[in-house]
Amino acid sequence: MSDDERAIREVMARWMAASSAGDVPTVLGLMADDVVFLVPGQAPFGKAEFAAASRAMRDVRLEGSNEIQELKVLGDWAFCVSRVEVSVTPPDGAAFRRAGHTLTLFRREPDGAWLLARDANLMAPA
Amino acid sequence: MSDDERAIREVMARWMAASSAGDVPTVLGLMADDVVFLVPGQAPFGKAEFAAASRAMRDVRLEGSNEIQELKVLGDWAFCVSRVEVSVTPPDGAAFRRAGHTLTLFRREPDGAWLLARDANLMAPA
Repeated sequence: MSDDERAIREVMARWMAASSAGDVPTVLGLMADDVVFLVPGQAPFGKAEFAAASRAMRDVRLEGSNEIQELKVLGDWAFCVSRVEVSVTPPDGAAFRRAGHTLTLFRREPDGAWLLARDANLMAPA
Repeated sequence: MSDDERAIREVMARWMAASSAGDVPTVLGLMADDVVFLVPGQAPFGKAEFAAASRAMRDVRLEGSNEIQELKVLGDWAFCVSRVEVSVTPPDGAAFRRAGHTLTLFRREPDGAWLLARDANLMAPA
């Protein structure tokens, strides 16, 4: 495994851990400022919208797992296909599960850090 | 615009035209043999499954448009974010519309041709 691949896998693991811990600042620090998120039935959105949605979900518990199915480094960019499963527990509601795949692009920033830059999230109720 | 970008835009235009014309062999010729399609609520699938689904939809009329929002060449790979709208007319049913975004990876083959290689399709009923 190359150093780049290892670094990207670490970003994804930190992302999942920080999401589960409700640590929004860490998650925001793992994405590029010009990140674009694509989800079904919604217009593309960026970092500010992601931050606002995360704040609105402050009291929701997330537990997830992420299986990397393909990871390919293309110079200063990389793409990754993952299978993601998340269990979502609202503060006063029943837990529900979402599962599906993501196609994610990472970019190496000038300081050498790999950040999430584009993300297509195809998760659906499971 | 670079020659590569022009070539990729042409692949996308030919894809849309061939889809509308029901010309499945041309569409299949525009994708890599190891292509992976990701859609919500379904397992990833490849060229054989795409071909079978297209044959099953032989009598369905498709009309679509595709607006490229971002296209970036990364050496022998490229990614593209598009907004797609499709009108679907079954032979004996009412037309319906689907719209949304796609995140697509293209790859330059050894013969120089750009082919669709990975595709996350986030279209939903519109």
